[in-house]
Amino acid sequence: MAVVAGLRAFGVKWPSWLRRNPWAPLSAGFCSPGSAGPAGSESEPRLTSTRQQDGIRNIVLSNPRRRNALSLAMLKSLRSDILHEAESEDLKVIIISAEGPVFSSGHDLKELTDAQGRDYHAEVFQTCSEVMMLIRNHPVPILAMVNGLATAAGCQLVASCDIAVASDKSSFATPGVNVGLFCSTPAVALGRAVPRKVALEMLFTGEPISAQEALRHGLISKVVPEEQLEAETMRIAKKISSLSRSVVALGKATFYKQLPQDLRTAYFLASQAMVDNLALQDGQEGIEAFIQKRKPIWSH
Amino acid sequence: MAVVAGLRAFGVKWPSWLRRNPWAPLSAGFCSPGSAGPAGSESEPRLTSTRQQDGIRNIVLSNPRRRNALSLAMLKSLRSDILHEAESEDLKVIIISAEGPVFSSGHDLKELTDAQGRDYHAEVFQTCSEVMMLIRNHPVPILAMVNGLATAAGCQLVASCDIAVASDKSSFATPGVNVGLFCSTPAVALGRAVPRKVALEMLFTGEPISAQEALRHGLISKVVPEEQLEAETMRIAKKISSLSRSVVALGKATFYKQLPQDLRTAYFLASQAMVDNLALQDGQEGIEAFIQKRKPIWSH
Amino acid sequence: MAVVAGLRAFGVKWPSWLRRNPWAPLSAGFCSPGSAGPAGSESEPRLTSTRQQDGIRNIVLSNPRRRNALSLAMLKSLRSDILHEAESEDLKVIIISAEGPVFSSGHDLKELTDAQGRDYHAEVFQTCSEVMMLIRNHPVPILAMVNGLATAAGCQLVASCDIAVASDKSSFATPGVNVGLFCSTPAVALGRAVPRKVALEMLFTGEPISAQEALRHGLISKVVPEEQLEAETMRIAKKISSLSRSVVALGKATFYKQLPQDLRTAYFLASQAMVDNLALQDGQEGIEAFIQKRKPIWSH
Repeated sequence: MAVVAGLRAFGVKWPSWLRRNPWAPLSAGFCSPGSAGPAGSESEPRLTSTRQQDGIRNIVLSNPRRRNALSLAMLKSLRSDILHEAESEDLKVIIISAEGPVFSSGHDLKELTDAQGRDYHAEVFQTCSEVMMLIRNHPVPILAMVNGLATAAGCQLVASCDIAVASDKSSFATPGVNVGLFCSTPAVALGRAVPRKVALEMLFTGEPISAQEALRHGLISKVVPEEQLEAETMRIAKKISSLSRSVVALGKATFYKQLPQDLRTAYFLASQAMVDNLALQDGQEGIEAFIQKRKPIWSH
Repeated sequence: MAVVAGLRAFGVKWPSWLRRNPWAPLSAGFCSPGSAGPAGSESEPRLTSTRQQDGIRNIVLSNPRRRNALSLAMLKSLRSDILHEAESEDLKVIIISAEGPVFSSGHDLKELTDAQGRDYHAEVFQTCSEVMMLIRNHPVPILAMVNGLATAAGCQLVASCDIAVASDKSSFATPGVNVGLFCSTPAVALGRAVPRKVALEMLFTGEPISAQEALRHGLISKVVPEEQLEAETMRIAKKISSLSRSVVALGKATFYKQLPQDLRTAYFLASQAMVDNLALQDGQEGIEAFIQKRKPIWSH
Repeated sequence: MAVVAGLRAFGVKWPSWLRRNPWAPLSAGFCSPGSAGPAGSESEPRLTSTRQQDGIRNIVLSNPRRRNALSLAMLKSLRSDILHEAESEDLKVIIISAEGPVFSSGHDLKELTDAQGRDYHAEVFQTCSEVMMLIRNHPVPILAMVNGLATAAGCQLVASCDIAVASDKSSFATPGVNVGLFCSTPAVALGRAVPRKVALEMLFTGEPISAQEALRHGLISKVVPEEQLEAETMRIAKKISSLSRSVVALGKATFYKQLPQDLRTAYFLASQAMVDNLALQDGQEGIEAFIQKRKPIWSH
């Protein structure tokens, strides 16, 4: 696999689709400016590894010794990898996976003691929230590939992805109550993915649910045996990478935009999007190819 | 079965419950006036067939040769059939079904090429959105009876009905991405019926889900073997037709009105509706009959 | 078990967390003042029984002869029992269960005839809505333990609890349409717990769903054989009672506060709550105990 040369050399810039978007990440008033700096500087070791081929970017949480904790440094690595060349036509889909038996254990509790202080705590949660919203605001679909335990903010990360494929040995929990820190930010993503009673039992008891239960309740999209996990995730990613990037980007943005609206506004927005989609070069190419019974050639 | 004489002779008039309702179909600014004209004129062949007996109206998509595509003409036929004598006491429930192995394949792509132009495209999506909202705003419950494949706007139609019964050979997909036209308007209904991750996998991959999966995720209400499909659907329709029309209409309107509200507003609206319901003649008749251990006689 | 002495002697006072809360029960304009009076007065027999031990309060609907109907008197008993010393540190979790084969049959139809009149009807529904919102606004988790049939407002009560455990012989219905009284207020809770199509089929047909179906659709949290019902419910209650009350209270309030918000506002609120949680004594105690590998000692 071709490693993306210099993937970390660019630091973080907000691309135009994020700046214009009313669903953009939290503004400066909420997000401390310092947190948006380059994550690849020498003072902060990279905690993720990334490769990209044929339009599919793999971002791997690579700190298994620390159970892939979402420390501030890890969150910044992740943000940088997600934002990197987000507008490039060469990027069609992102897969987030992890090394080791734990997908992610959530925040690093050592960063949340009194010693760090309130401002540091705020930066951790704001950066985390930003990463989660970035997944939704990103122009390409973002998949989680889960093989193991995902807890607290790790569970939140899975819930926040557009699609999640998990091995049957995976499990999911929000156990913050056990250490006196209720999983309130993970609950934002969890409460929008599963029925209310499922979310509250997980939050109040801290007990894990199995991959099958997570599937049944909508937290994940698919469960497969461990040995098929990579193949199935790649199958979905390859399918998405074969589609028109501009059409998928318009569809993804419209989906999240209309979902919280009342029905009438939702249909107004979505109808507009359909007309705009047809005006895209790829919109007409797809329909012509279909009528002519040939494969479409996308210009993205 | 008695065929409703002159069902198409009336053209389309907005009945008062639609004009007064804040959730009414799109106003003239959004909906081109021409689209509300009578669908039964000679220039536009009827693409649906309709019969009504004992309060149950059957609307059948009757263009199996074109996979019951929701062309503009089909949408107008459907709208006309749904709106026809909507306020009549003789109408208690509507069933939408289809001829042939495909319930509906969604929009007619031949209507969506550059040749038709942007205004025509807009009329198609606006009329489609109108039909979907009409189902929700209609005073009687509207059931889908699905026996086969329902894709794109065909899947949207199923998702938009109040209840949907499907045979076990049915399947559901939103495959627009394959032809460069993301199913953004179907996603409005789909995204309100199933968990977010289920909707997004369907939308991003275009792959179908089975009737059992559709049931598990809330897209449909019930799955039965093909040979029981009509009997089970009629059983539900007959049950509904045996109830008080005015009570059901008040209940349906209140359900959709309170659902998007915050809890307190929802309870305020619903409590008002309960008191109003009790003030209906059928409200008191039902309770008296129950206390007197006799069958109620509805005045509708 | 120690019976709480004088549990009913206090009447109803709105505790400060209810008065300050924007999600507080309906204000005086909506709630007739008389309904907030003490429920334990001699003119109104108590229809619930209550005991509390080790932080777990058991409230039992105790009118099996009337199928535990939620008459106005029953609703007032329930409200009084839920509100009693709600802010006491000794209370960690509430379990609502019922005597007899029917959990609750919903409103008492004899209270809803013309003879009582519109104002009385309004008081019934307002008191009922208040009780349901009280469950959500209460600082401690409230569990339903269901062993039998729960219909109409009885089903609403189950849907309104934070967690619900049911025996496999339980079933759930909203059969108001059969007596000409659509279950519009139960639909507020039902429509927020299960997919729309499930709710509408229940509401339009009045037919019951099994405990397994209720579980699949999110109406309840867990199904167990009847003989394990009490043990499983107590296991969950004991787990919750072992946690920090202040942390759980903050988490519960934040969950319901962020859930109806757009994603950005939700993350803003939840991130604030996380920082506040860490500033709680129990927030730091929990993390210190975890790092020191010892059991936390909560100060609540």
